[in-house]
Amino acid sequence: MPTITKSKKPANIFYAQSGGVTGVINSTARGVIETASKYKDKIGKVLIGRHGIQGLLLEELYDMSKENKKAIAGLHYIPGGAFGSCRYKLTDPHESLAEYKRIIEVCQAHNIKYFLYNGGNDSADTTHKLAKISKKLGHPMTCIGIPKTMDNDLACMDVSPGYGSAAKFIATSTKEVGVDIKSMAPATQIYILETMGRHAGWLAAASGLAKQQDSDPPHIILMPEVPLNKENFLVKVNQCVKKYGYCHIVTSESLRDENGAHIAETGQKDAFGHIQLGGLAPILANMIYDRFGYQYHYSIADYIQRASRHLGCKVDLQQAYAVGKAAVEFAIKGLNGIAPVIVRKRGKKYSWEIKTASLQKIANNERNMPRDFITKDGMGITKKCYDYLYPLIQGEDIPPFKNGLPVYPELKLKLVTKKLKEFQLQG
Amino acid sequence: MPTITKSKKPANIFYAQSGGVTGVINSTARGVIETASKYKDKIGKVLIGRHGIQGLLLEELYDMSKENKKAIAGLHYIPGGAFGSCRYKLTDPHESLAEYKRIIEVCQAHNIKYFLYNGGNDSADTTHKLAKISKKLGHPMTCIGIPKTMDNDLACMDVSPGYGSAAKFIATSTKEVGVDIKSMAPATQIYILETMGRHAGWLAAASGLAKQQDSDPPHIILMPEVPLNKENFLVKVNQCVKKYGYCHIVTSESLRDENGAHIAETGQKDAFGHIQLGGLAPILANMIYDRFGYQYHYSIADYIQRASRHLGCKVDLQQAYAVGKAAVEFAIKGLNGIAPVIVRKRGKKYSWEIKTASLQKIANNERNMPRDFITKDGMGITKKCYDYLYPLIQGEDIPPFKNGLPVYPELKLKLVTKKLKEFQLQG
Repeated sequence: MPTITKSKKPANIFYAQSGGVTGVINSTARGVIETASKYKDKIGKVLIGRHGIQGLLLEELYDMSKENKKAIAGLHYIPGGAFGSCRYKLTDPHESLAEYKRIIEVCQAHNIKYFLYNGGNDSADTTHKLAKISKKLGHPMTCIGIPKTMDNDLACMDVSPGYGSAAKFIATSTKEVGVDIKSMAPATQIYILETMGRHAGWLAAASGLAKQQDSDPPHIILMPEVPLNKENFLVKVNQCVKKYGYCHIVTSESLRDENGAHIAETGQKDAFGHIQLGGLAPILANMIYDRFGYQYHYSIADYIQRASRHLGCKVDLQQAYAVGKAAVEFAIKGLNGIAPVIVRKRGKKYSWEIKTASLQKIANNERNMPRDFITKDGMGITKKCYDYLYPLIQGEDIPPFKNGLPVYPELKLKLVTKKLKEFQLQG
Repeated sequence: MPTITKSKKPANIFYAQSGGVTGVINSTARGVIETASKYKDKIGKVLIGRHGIQGLLLEELYDMSKENKKAIAGLHYIPGGAFGSCRYKLTDPHESLAEYKRIIEVCQAHNIKYFLYNGGNDSADTTHKLAKISKKLGHPMTCIGIPKTMDNDLACMDVSPGYGSAAKFIATSTKEVGVDIKSMAPATQIYILETMGRHAGWLAAASGLAKQQDSDPPHIILMPEVPLNKENFLVKVNQCVKKYGYCHIVTSESLRDENGAHIAETGQKDAFGHIQLGGLAPILANMIYDRFGYQYHYSIADYIQRASRHLGCKVDLQQAYAVGKAAVEFAIKGLNGIAPVIVRKRGKKYSWEIKTASLQKIANNERNMPRDFITKDGMGITKKCYDYLYPLIQGEDIPPFKNGLPVYPELKLKLVTKKLKEFQLQG
């Protein structure tokens, strides 16, 4: 009875990367692929969406069985999203089920029964919806979200994979530039680093790891959790210049004033309707120049900070791999609508374990900096914050270099043969 | 006859750092200090100006005989200017000799007969003037300029120490961010990196080292040597997006349009009257957004690129040390008004040697990118440029890390006891 034999073929995993990528998201992919290969009786192939869920809708699926082991291990080193990411939002299922039906159709055609989506809270929301709808549409799938975001603003976890690497780069660069600006003090008094971080100050806060004593940079850290009081800010800037000869400032990309108005807006919106921000550093620099006439320099790190794989962070790489591995193990157990998350264990020495969290909770929450992580004046981090951050940037993992540049291996990226009709993206 | 004995005491060296510092300028200081210590019969102490020549005027001199060997060797790792830099311009000697007289007075008081100034062309000019004036004022000194600038725009040399490190960081980051932006292409089509480089495109050009084939980033490199033709630029941006899904652009901080007008000016001027530029990346990004509506991200690297000692460049570190060493050897030989410079030797394999160049020539010239280093369309680098740049970023020199961050040792920095009255800086 060949039909039964066919249906017993182990189901395939769909995995994809979504949203802003991180320096270690490919380690999560590696964790998924290598772990799946250990359960040949339960899992067939790992099929990866080209540009996230868009790849599933368009039936553009990379077949990991075509890659050799060395290439998969090489994912450890590749920054960015090796399979392409997207910011594609599925239509609200109450409006139309067309995209969901298409997803089910593609999954049925390719024997996909595990849906693993590696992203932030928008992706958790997508995964959560799909977990419910796939059952309704007659092709129940085990849907698991895998957390990642360099912003560290996902709820229900101690840290999100991707954060540690960016934090390590920001702290390192702050330390380096701190020495530089100090030496330039007679000529240039102000340096501002603008980090990413739209609603949460975690990335800017990481710069505080470079500080050992009061006189060390950064002298001021501005985080979106605290409305900017311009007058207090300018007073503190001037105090630093008078005391140390210079003032080293780190700011998140987004700040609001005390009336709740954004201080920097570009006017752009992304596919999710989020306002695109940027250019806060020059606004602050000009504010200072206008008041005191201090010469300034500023950096806007943007993608530099999150792609900086040349300065790999060991802890973050391990955690990124671990959530990928756990996602497959949870999938096999049939855990549905959850995500593997990093939880800090108790004890003086830093240690962590993987637990599960509900995708619904991750989807509908955002984790800001707790008030007691921020100093009273709102312009620095507390010892409690330092103690939280410190273990997350430990360990170096430097990639191999060739001809003066890091080697970031490439995969074959073979797409599976399409079986269905073409589909037009709705978004 | 104690007076004679005293006068036979070997003369001291004055060394100082000036202008924008580099990631390897402290290796030059190390070369000076370690080499001087090998000629105890000819050289007494190395006294280093706190914040460049300001330290000499103010009699603020760090005494290197108070540092231990390990601390001096540690200069290899420290970014920025370990002794402080300045952008102080001495008064024109035709207007007033007051500052020159003060310098001579301090040098006489501290038995300084060698003046080693580590800087760019403004510093070469200062050193050149002092070589002539010190003789006139009755205290002839051997004055040697030591080149440094991450901008690579100094004349009479193949490369200026400091450039290779910044170039390596820029090429590495371009390669990394290139992978990142490629993965984000459905959501973000444009990425712009703004490098430093006011008049010369060397830093932006270095990003071209990340490119192996046409489709690789960077797709467009904009250098100040070529006036920006906005229409041609926009056409090429759009072609790239159509062809590759995204366009990765690297631009120098300063560009002029075809009428010679600066595209980005901050309105600030530094102590030398140079216009302070910045913020070109957002201007270009908006230009593209207005025409095509492409979503963008941009980075302004600024000090991040030049302080990035965590990614040390071996060749650059060796060359920085070598010019410091040679400066002392030339000083002992009594060579005056010159600078040790890096000269590329002939042959297929990259090799270099130190020669001398006239400070006057360095002071009065600026080295831009030759036209045949830039592609015909003015938006890329040629094979000839690649071949020139390639050897300059070779080799990695990663500093030790502790607790997740690079260790940048600190010196004791003991100032000598002042012997003279206070002096007020004129600038």
